Amino acid sequence: MNVLQQKKLKPLSFTNVVIDDAFWSPRIQVNREQTIPHQYVQCKETGRMDAFNLAWNHGMDNEPHIFWDSDVAKWIEAASYSLATHPDPELEKLVDDVISLIASAQQPDGYINIYFTVVKPGERWTDLRDAHELYCAGHLIEAGVAHFEATKKRTLLDVVRRYADHIDSVFGIEEGKKRGYCGHQEIELALVKLYRVTGEKRYLELSQYFIDERGREPHYFILEKEDKTGFFHDFMNHLDNIKEYNQSHKPVREQSKVVGHSVRAMYMYSAMADLAGEIGDESLLKACERLWGHLHTKNMFITGGIGSTGKNEGFTYDYDLPNETSYAETCAAIGLVFWNQRMLQLECDGKYADAMERALYNGVISGVSLDGKKFFYANPLASLGDRHRNEWFGCACCPPNIARLLASLGGYIYSQSMDELIVHLYIQGEAKFDLHGQQIKLKQKTEYPWNGKVTIHIELEQPDVFGVKLRIPKWCKEAQLKVNNQEIEMTGILEKGYVRMEREWKNGDTVELDLVMPVERVYSHPNVRQNVNDAALQRGPLIYCLESVDNVESLHKIKLLNEGELTTIYDQTLLGGVMKITGDAEVVGHTDWGDKLYWTEKGNSEPFQITAIPYYAWDNREPGQMRVWIPEGNKY
Amino acid sequence: MNVLQQKKLKPLSFTNVVIDDAFWSPRIQVNREQTIPHQYVQCKETGRMDAFNLAWNHGMDNEPHIFWDSDVAKWIEAASYSLATHPDPELEKLVDDVISLIASAQQPDGYINIYFTVVKPGERWTDLRDAHELYCAGHLIEAGVAHFEATKKRTLLDVVRRYADHIDSVFGIEEGKKRGYCGHQEIELALVKLYRVTGEKRYLELSQYFIDERGREPHYFILEKEDKTGFFHDFMNHLDNIKEYNQSHKPVREQSKVVGHSVRAMYMYSAMADLAGEIGDESLLKACERLWGHLHTKNMFITGGIGSTGKNEGFTYDYDLPNETSYAETCAAIGLVFWNQRMLQLECDGKYADAMERALYNGVISGVSLDGKKFFYANPLASLGDRHRNEWFGCACCPPNIARLLASLGGYIYSQSMDELIVHLYIQGEAKFDLHGQQIKLKQKTEYPWNGKVTIHIELEQPDVFGVKLRIPKWCKEAQLKVNNQEIEMTGILEKGYVRMEREWKNGDTVELDLVMPVERVYSHPNVRQNVNDAALQRGPLIYCLESVDNVESLHKIKLLNEGELTTIYDQTLLGGVMKITGDAEVVGHTDWGDKLYWTEKGNSEPFQITAIPYYAWDNREPGQMRVWIPEGNKY
Repeated sequence: MNVLQQKKLKPLSFTNVVIDDAFWSPRIQVNREQTIPHQYVQCKETGRMDAFNLAWNHGMDNEPHIFWDSDVAKWIEAASYSLATHPDPELEKLVDDVISLIASAQQPDGYINIYFTVVKPGERWTDLRDAHELYCAGHLIEAGVAHFEATKKRTLLDVVRRYADHIDSVFGIEEGKKRGYCGHQEIELALVKLYRVTGEKRYLELSQYFIDERGREPHYFILEKEDKTGFFHDFMNHLDNIKEYNQSHKPVREQSKVVGHSVRAMYMYSAMADLAGEIGDESLLKACERLWGHLHTKNMFITGGIGSTGKNEGFTYDYDLPNETSYAETCAAIGLVFWNQRMLQLECDGKYADAMERALYNGVISGVSLDGKKFFYANPLASLGDRHRNEWFGCACCPPNIARLLASLGGYIYSQSMDELIVHLYIQGEAKFDLHGQQIKLKQKTEYPWNGKVTIHIELEQPDVFGVKLRIPKWCKEAQLKVNNQEIEMTGILEKGYVRMEREWKNGDTVELDLVMPVERVYSHPNVRQNVNDAALQRGPLIYCLESVDNVESLHKIKLLNEGELTTIYDQTLLGGVMKITGDAEVVGHTDWGDKLYWTEKGNSEPFQITAIPYYAWDNREPGQMRVWIPEGNKY
Repeated sequence: MNVLQQKKLKPLSFTNVVIDDAFWSPRIQVNREQTIPHQYVQCKETGRMDAFNLAWNHGMDNEPHIFWDSDVAKWIEAASYSLATHPDPELEKLVDDVISLIASAQQPDGYINIYFTVVKPGERWTDLRDAHELYCAGHLIEAGVAHFEATKKRTLLDVVRRYADHIDSVFGIEEGKKRGYCGHQEIELALVKLYRVTGEKRYLELSQYFIDERGREPHYFILEKEDKTGFFHDFMNHLDNIKEYNQSHKPVREQSKVVGHSVRAMYMYSAMADLAGEIGDESLLKACERLWGHLHTKNMFITGGIGSTGKNEGFTYDYDLPNETSYAETCAAIGLVFWNQRMLQLECDGKYADAMERALYNGVISGVSLDGKKFFYANPLASLGDRHRNEWFGCACCPPNIARLLASLGGYIYSQSMDELIVHLYIQGEAKFDLHGQQIKLKQKTEYPWNGKVTIHIELEQPDVFGVKLRIPKWCKEAQLKVNNQEIEMTGILEKGYVRMEREWKNGDTVELDLVMPVERVYSHPNVRQNVNDAALQRGPLIYCLESVDNVESLHKIKLLNEGELTTIYDQTLLGGVMKITGDAEVVGHTDWGDKLYWTEKGNSEPFQITAIPYYAWDNREPGQMRVWIPEGNKY
């Protein structure tokens, strides 16, 4: 074990965490009671479930799509997490049935893929670049692992192991194996999960093979295309640089800039972080750190959304962060959470938790409606009133992705090391750790994100010396810390965004943290041309936005006043209960413009009180415009 | 003759106008000496000229394109206008040779079209919607008319008459004729020109047929597509509304909103205005007036460019005027000039001349480089540094369009009625009118657009009573008028943007007009979200812009100060001689931003002196950003 492997934290499993939180519990409940059943119905009605019957034949309607396996797999994953925290025999039966169906679709050699079994039999592994075959395999593997962790049943795990074994027999550097990898990364992180749960090193090695091989010359996707046996060859050829699109433009350890499709990038970086920790590979960590910096300092929306254009569903160029046309795919924000959570285990640096929190409270949960049944694929930062969530998509990656994240949220809150318990996120509930041979319980009480006060009660049988680390979010400029009602000076114990208290902890000890949470005006780096002279409103981890329904129809006419006051009001009845922000602004009038389109006099302005709501909650009322970045200036 | 027909003005032909102007003469000279020869070479080298040999066969390279005839036709038109004002035996020979070639391509029945003769023989008139067949015919007709007017030679005119006769035998409401019309309007205005020069009423009636038939039900393009004999059927089907794209969504007299492809719209509205005057059709005039209002009050860039997106090369929705992605095709600004010049003859209202002038001095001449050899297709109002003129295009409509307009600019300056001489544009030179049986010469002296002083000397043999009308541009808020050195009170004689002086004019009379021309800050209507809180700089008819080379690399960082001074300096050496504007501004700095992408402190600002140049002259120096609309606010 090298330093990297030794230093590595262990995230506390969602199975050891109970969430009982005013903000998150209703969301998880809606996810369980509405979203997961809704998505089952969608998968069922669109034919995704029954396609595993392999009964489709050419000439029939509703040809199975290359992504279908993954949608069902992600639904199983979400349902499994939910079963672990909220047992539900009916749902369990449903999951078991779907798993039986998948098992029945497994070919004698272990292979499972609807599309390549019924639509293009005989063409397996001939278009790795675009056909998502290993991507679907990855999601099946993740589902198998989640189902086992949640239920201890091996039904799906055994199926996906056989499939992974088959894939292992097909891909690799050995003579006679294909030296390919998937155009859409996903299997790499799935194989690490499979390794962790089975202990079988071959899976880790196969993941490493996929990561190591990517971008090597001679380039597999070029050879594959020359071979002309694939069938999607020209599917993505409108893109200027297809190698950057799928991050195969260079070997991953040589990559320094985030490029291409943002979800592929996030899943790949997540696997790189996983592998860095598992095999102690500093070069992978270094690559992750470079990529992390490039992404988070030049290419991330303030909501944690990423991907500046729909053209490549991904990155464009530094500081290009358009608001009306931001792509900010829900899956990409989720991928950002995955990656940052993994980075956080390799180095307990608050910047990773800050980014994870930013995405979670903004660009991730904006992806689902408050009723749990409608979803954004793209999450723009401004809308002219024509952007609304849909019940489902032909390419339905986002809905089950958000369902599986919400169902496993408990797994993102805490970590532990050999002698530390670490709190990354402030979410009320309980966490059970095993440390030094005894169970230690942390009971967290908080009204976060509406209020920055957090109280943590420690329960353990035997007093013990260990560290408790609490994150001080970057958004917080003023915090107070108390242990057993005694104030603690934070200066000396603050490191990389965490305060660390080491002492002999006794049963009943109480830590109180008060994160002062005023409304803040936030500005973009001056290189972001889209937001120049604009401000966004933030309070705690939440980014706010304006909606027409609370303000005026044309939101661009609002100007926030430099010296204007901003106040907060908690509104229990609004959007499931939110802290609103109101503030002094002006709105441009139309007096005297008449028919003129251009004129030498400015329009008049009138005083106006804006009302802002949390970004995540937009588009849950009557349609209208939305805007995060607001022009700011002096009184007219 | 009804009132409309009686009231109609007659534009003074370019053959009666000599331009000797410090601003325009060098442009016309470059057009003659560089652009027209350059475009001949381009047409020759790309195979456009020789394609009229009809020697292409299937299997050969360089398949003729559906637009090719029109490129050559527009080149002939430009060259002809040039020959009229600047005889040039070599160019004349070249034109004659090309005309012979075209004549040789004429089929026994009069038909001429390269593509449908050699590439798709037997498929004539089967895809009127997308194949540009009548569009090409229209340009050939315009070329034939221009060549005749310029040289008095009938060589091309006779050829295109035979073609027009053939078209007349194919299209119409009579039994056995096709009830179609062209997807790209152009032939309608060409046929009016052909009628005017030949006196043959059938051409006017054919034009009227095309205009009347457009948009009627059953819809010709739907029937055509159902017929499945065309071959471009799916070419433009990515558009949401193909009928609006080519303005066939309703009969033209029922249209009130500008929609679709902007060049098609301009050419159609031009023909509608022509027909309104020729046949005295008030309903066409009314439609033109409605469409004019909708375009000019809600859908025109400040440069006179039109077309808000490249997706349909046209209009989007009211007040949507994006700067980086403005389409503002050069051809569309030229079409705007065509249309406004025609409207002006129907009603001498300065608003038409204002719009014509706005386009001419900004969005039209921005389309060609100062050296005359590079062209913009789209004319954005902001560039990040990656937008540059090209020497030619596969679809090369814009370069010869600008060449023909510059070569015939004399025709846009003056009009006359039964008893009035009217000056629309201030361009130094001479104009010869025939009025009341004698020739009257107006000699115009001015340094416009750099200086608003205009002197007009009147030369005539016999004193005569008539009106002289001079336009007072809308941009001008203060003007002085003198006749023979005596000040004239303008109040009583100003009507619809023109001062009208009726008196007995004698030889040597002098009219002096002083249009005060300060730098102005111009604002957009508050509904234009893209320009909210921004100002543009204008002086006289010229819109200004910032370029990186004179300012800072990232132009969005500049903020014009509300109270800042703006001054002008004429720089003889810059861009062929321009009046620069300098002014007080601030530029955002980067102090303390470090790696932060979002932060609660604004960046610092530093005082900065901006330098703005006329928009038309941008991208003639080293590459860099460009920006018309500049954030404006108080000192930081």
